[in-house]
Amino acid sequence: MDRTNPIGFFDSGIGGLTVVRAVTQLLPNENIIYFGDTARVPYGSKSNDTVIDYSLQAANFLLRKNIKLLVVACNTASSVALKDLKRFLTIPVIGMIEPGSRLALQESKNGKVGVIGTNATINNKAYSHQLKKLSPKIQVYEKACPLFVPLAEEGWIENKATELIAKEYLTELKEKEIDSLVLGCTHYPILRDVIQKVIGKKVKLVDSGTPAAKIVEDYLNGRGLRNISNQLGKREFYVSDIPTKFREIAERFLGRKISHLHKVDLDELINE
Amino acid sequence: MDRTNPIGFFDSGIGGLTVVRAVTQLLPNENIIYFGDTARVPYGSKSNDTVIDYSLQAANFLLRKNIKLLVVACNTASSVALKDLKRFLTIPVIGMIEPGSRLALQESKNGKVGVIGTNATINNKAYSHQLKKLSPKIQVYEKACPLFVPLAEEGWIENKATELIAKEYLTELKEKEIDSLVLGCTHYPILRDVIQKVIGKKVKLVDSGTPAAKIVEDYLNGRGLRNISNQLGKREFYVSDIPTKFREIAERFLGRKISHLHKVDLDELINE
Repeated sequence: MDRTNPIGFFDSGIGGLTVVRAVTQLLPNENIIYFGDTARVPYGSKSNDTVIDYSLQAANFLLRKNIKLLVVACNTASSVALKDLKRFLTIPVIGMIEPGSRLALQESKNGKVGVIGTNATINNKAYSHQLKKLSPKIQVYEKACPLFVPLAEEGWIENKATELIAKEYLTELKEKEIDSLVLGCTHYPILRDVIQKVIGKKVKLVDSGTPAAKIVEDYLNGRGLRNISNQLGKREFYVSDIPTKFREIAERFLGRKISHLHKVDLDELINE
Repeated sequence: MDRTNPIGFFDSGIGGLTVVRAVTQLLPNENIIYFGDTARVPYGSKSNDTVIDYSLQAANFLLRKNIKLLVVACNTASSVALKDLKRFLTIPVIGMIEPGSRLALQESKNGKVGVIGTNATINNKAYSHQLKKLSPKIQVYEKACPLFVPLAEEGWIENKATELIAKEYLTELKEKEIDSLVLGCTHYPILRDVIQKVIGKKVKLVDSGTPAAKIVEDYLNGRGLRNISNQLGKREFYVSDIPTKFREIAERFLGRKISHLHKVDLDELINE
């Protein structure tokens, strides 16, 4: 494996671009390949079997691009498919659950942590298990917030309806007096302001992107795989569908322009 | 073709079950096969090319089950893929756009018709074109309401946030003084009450299910293909994914229990 090989990322759609954003801020010289499964998005409302199939297909696609490391930039896929991905892949695989959980434990003073995510992430209790493994006495309160993904994708960010929906979802967590809240879906950082307003200023919001980027850095340093070029890395983006307004929405998540955008056919994902 | 062959229906997911419900009420003795592409739902946010591919795959799957008639029980697929489906299939194909448009024209007294649907349906202007073809002087006001699908799927039916979102979407149609409104997505009948409340009692809500069922009946009668058995028809349901709570949500849309439910693999859809 060569230092200049790219880091691979995949997500059900565009949410994972918030993770790419964190990694490129920390490691601007790394080459990056992103795959977003926009033809089959979302994953969070689908069954475990389907999410595992899709995740293995995405990983295989990226492996054929000679990635040196795989970042599962999707909390649903991390919750459901990480074990299978680690079993089948010989390169390191970094998911979103452990970095987010570690940071939440650091941030919490009272031992009460909230977690929000998709139906699949919450039903699988991935964060509960991870948090309790790291700190057996921690109290974890989980809540699925399925409407947050479409709200973020529609850009309904400063909106009375979004605030009402956030109140409906978050009131029970607030009543538990949590002091840190894991944004357990890569879409949710887009709604950070309204979530903070509803849950209250004292609650620390924890997003997996930044701690995951730190783990990527540690991995690469530890294995001598850090790209030591002093040029800005190449960033390539592959998606299984390019709907109207895709670029505009994706650039909102990535925080910058997307220049190398390619479409992948589902046949290519499924059959190879 | 035999009278006892089934009628085929497909939709991106479960919304088309509201159309099955209308057809089985009118034609209880017909055998029915439904395919819901729950592994790739929704279609309404995806590109035309992708929706056409998926629609042809669904149609081919149903053709292998010897259907005598295809009902495209999805407004997005009807808007985007009906022409291609009619070109490739030798059996009759019934979409949602024409039945809904005809009924809206009957209901409208002032010649101002509103249409709501997914992004794909509205961007393709399928209803505008159809309505103006049927009645060139009609004034059509279209509005995409992408958050209605997740709200209906989540069952947020009598809810303050849903009402606020409906107000945000529908106010501009109300200001145009429309007197009939096409519910141009098979999910929307689930939200009928809140839509009626927001748009006002005087506006007639038009849903494609009932007029489409009438067209199915006319087709079968006209071609001598009506099932004359006096037994209740067999109803089989195929889906590409069965997530948690699927049955509960699907039965809400169908209005009755689902007994014959099968899973189809995507490979089978794509490769055959």
